[in-house]
Amino acid sequence: MKTRFYNARILTMTDGINIMEGELHVDADKIVYIGNTKGDSSFDKEIDCKGNVLMPGFKNAHTHTAMTFLRSFADDLPLQEWLFNRVFPMEAKLTPDRVYWLSRLGILEYLTSGMTANFDMYMKTEAIVSASIDSGFRTVLCDSMNNFGGSVEQMEKDYDKYNAVDPLISYHLGFHAEYTTSLELMKQLSGLANRRKLPVFVHNSETRKEVDECIERYGKTPTELLDSIGMYNYGGGGYHCVWMSEKDIEIFRDRKLFAVTNPGSNTKLASGIAPICRYLKEGIPVAIGTDGPASNNCLDMFREMFLVTGLQKISEKDAEACDAAEVLKMACVNGAHAMRLYDCDVLAVGKKADIIEIDLNQPNMQPLNNIAKNIVYSGSKQNVKRTMVNGKLLYECGEFFVGEKPEIIYEKANTIIKEMCNE
Amino acid sequence: MKTRFYNARILTMTDGINIMEGELHVDADKIVYIGNTKGDSSFDKEIDCKGNVLMPGFKNAHTHTAMTFLRSFADDLPLQEWLFNRVFPMEAKLTPDRVYWLSRLGILEYLTSGMTANFDMYMKTEAIVSASIDSGFRTVLCDSMNNFGGSVEQMEKDYDKYNAVDPLISYHLGFHAEYTTSLELMKQLSGLANRRKLPVFVHNSETRKEVDECIERYGKTPTELLDSIGMYNYGGGGYHCVWMSEKDIEIFRDRKLFAVTNPGSNTKLASGIAPICRYLKEGIPVAIGTDGPASNNCLDMFREMFLVTGLQKISEKDAEACDAAEVLKMACVNGAHAMRLYDCDVLAVGKKADIIEIDLNQPNMQPLNNIAKNIVYSGSKQNVKRTMVNGKLLYECGEFFVGEKPEIIYEKANTIIKEMCNE
Repeated sequence: MKTRFYNARILTMTDGINIMEGELHVDADKIVYIGNTKGDSSFDKEIDCKGNVLMPGFKNAHTHTAMTFLRSFADDLPLQEWLFNRVFPMEAKLTPDRVYWLSRLGILEYLTSGMTANFDMYMKTEAIVSASIDSGFRTVLCDSMNNFGGSVEQMEKDYDKYNAVDPLISYHLGFHAEYTTSLELMKQLSGLANRRKLPVFVHNSETRKEVDECIERYGKTPTELLDSIGMYNYGGGGYHCVWMSEKDIEIFRDRKLFAVTNPGSNTKLASGIAPICRYLKEGIPVAIGTDGPASNNCLDMFREMFLVTGLQKISEKDAEACDAAEVLKMACVNGAHAMRLYDCDVLAVGKKADIIEIDLNQPNMQPLNNIAKNIVYSGSKQNVKRTMVNGKLLYECGEFFVGEKPEIIYEKANTIIKEMCNE
Repeated sequence: MKTRFYNARILTMTDGINIMEGELHVDADKIVYIGNTKGDSSFDKEIDCKGNVLMPGFKNAHTHTAMTFLRSFADDLPLQEWLFNRVFPMEAKLTPDRVYWLSRLGILEYLTSGMTANFDMYMKTEAIVSASIDSGFRTVLCDSMNNFGGSVEQMEKDYDKYNAVDPLISYHLGFHAEYTTSLELMKQLSGLANRRKLPVFVHNSETRKEVDECIERYGKTPTELLDSIGMYNYGGGGYHCVWMSEKDIEIFRDRKLFAVTNPGSNTKLASGIAPICRYLKEGIPVAIGTDGPASNNCLDMFREMFLVTGLQKISEKDAEACDAAEVLKMACVNGAHAMRLYDCDVLAVGKKADIIEIDLNQPNMQPLNNIAKNIVYSGSKQNVKRTMVNGKLLYECGEFFVGEKPEIIYEKANTIIKEMCNE
């Protein structure tokens, strides 16, 4: 399958937010040409981009996709009641079949928001993998081991298995969080990470309570604790990273750990504002995630991008804080690097064809004063005209091409939540 | 023209966020039926809503529409440089023709976001009025008198003229701000407001600097000053209302003044977070505006609604703060009341047909756990399927019906900003 995009503005993300005009060719799963001529190739599909932007797909660097079933299920509640009385009892009723359909629903939404990959921490791995492959979507799994499920032995098996299962799927070491995982389990995982020289990702310093309780238990912040047992010797990072001490920041800086920020979720759950400007100043790589739809409630990289910069402007009391160009890099390039998708980070020959087309022929993009910054400040799902993953168009002009009708997926999701409420 | 909407979920906003199923009929500019049967009427157009939501259009209760030309023109700059070096010199080059086309561009964006009316404070009034009428859009004008333009005599003439010009147009007394208007002018305006028994709207307490300087000049906050000269004797309110003292809040409460919040703009310009929860507790009516596209940069009620509640949750450190149901009321009902659009506030027989259809057949709305709250927490422009103003469908399934092709309007806007940069 060879696809030609022409009449495009190309934001490769290899050169800041500079944009070139021209065309881009895809052969099978790869970008094979970026330049100004059609050449003498023949194509299976030719797309007139009408001046729209082609750019690397957004990477959702932290999520729990299948939590779609709890979207708007229990809003405006305090965190503890939400989590313990509403979320956990429902999650106990999940089956692989349910996770499969709920993941497919989340993937549809990713496509509408120009996300071409997700970093998914959830249960029933096999079902997640099937949902992703059947949709044609790229998923990087992160293990969610904790005291209530999973083991380091299983994680190593899963690591080897799922990194070999399909070009769309890869696997990271990870665990849920310090507050749900025994020190013994964490030490075992650190042993694996050091033996295999692998990065580890985990929820880290999402709430002040989490940090305070960790200090009470161990006399150390979560980051200090993990570092002290060698968990971060080969990199990785933290999801959320809202409440980080000076020493935590030094550890992240020195070990080049990724801070994956989730401002939508941190806002809705009143967790706080992560010190992103500080991370940027220290050279800590920041990526962006939506977190799960139960706590956000939407899976929308445009919302997240505006919040990343907007909340910094508010907390720093400085309209210059956290330039939109940096935010765009977080959403495309840094996310890919956190997820070790080194061939999905920018648009360049030889890279994977994970590409989105941003519709500029919409009122919120006009006039064309600064296109890249406007994507961050004014963009919305309405501007996502096409989403291509691994060389295949999965979403085009409002239609999905994911091997299943969206109506079927919606119906499944509604049936699942109804059944679960009655069980 | 008679229109029938059927197979609808109807969120009338007359009964909290409860939703009824049924149909809604429009005759000319009015809602003539809400219920369960087609009856024996014949219709010019019948719309199968396929289970989607019909609800009152959103009211953009504070904006400067024609500032579309400065969208993403000067982002990530400190407020003073942004305003004095970038915005003001460009605004000086505006002509009525330019304001006309730039307003038409803003109106297109309002329609994509389900806004059916705006409360517009800008210059070249005649051009704004023409743009609104030609588009079929509802505009409530607010006078922007200040030391550099306008007068109270002119305002009274404009008040009488524009409240009679067209059913789509109405006019409020107003002035730009305390910091741009002499005490003498403000006193003259207060005289007019008292003589005609009319409410007055004005930028009020947007930044801490504004409040501090007013106290330095007059020994009073802006709200105290305005109240002391009788400006608010017949109601009205403030745009922004971020930095309000206890006494200011008492004045707003006792005089039933509207606090019009603009969280997108306050975030992007680092102005701060308005104490919305406090206003709700005091019974102060809160409405929502986008502010102008130069400072936001998009005109998107979904972004604003999420920010209204999200920023309260953050600043109150409470995930329960500012319930989504309250926010939806602000966006539809309170906005209408602030703008004195008493016949556009809810869906009921006899009210104006300012109606939007929210597409639930999109992944971000599924499953249907709590539709109204999900509109606030997960909704986006992509969910706006139809926007009807005064009984006419101006936006339907991505197409505009505003008497001019959007491409022409985009081209005009781009030409205007290019010309202005070269002048």
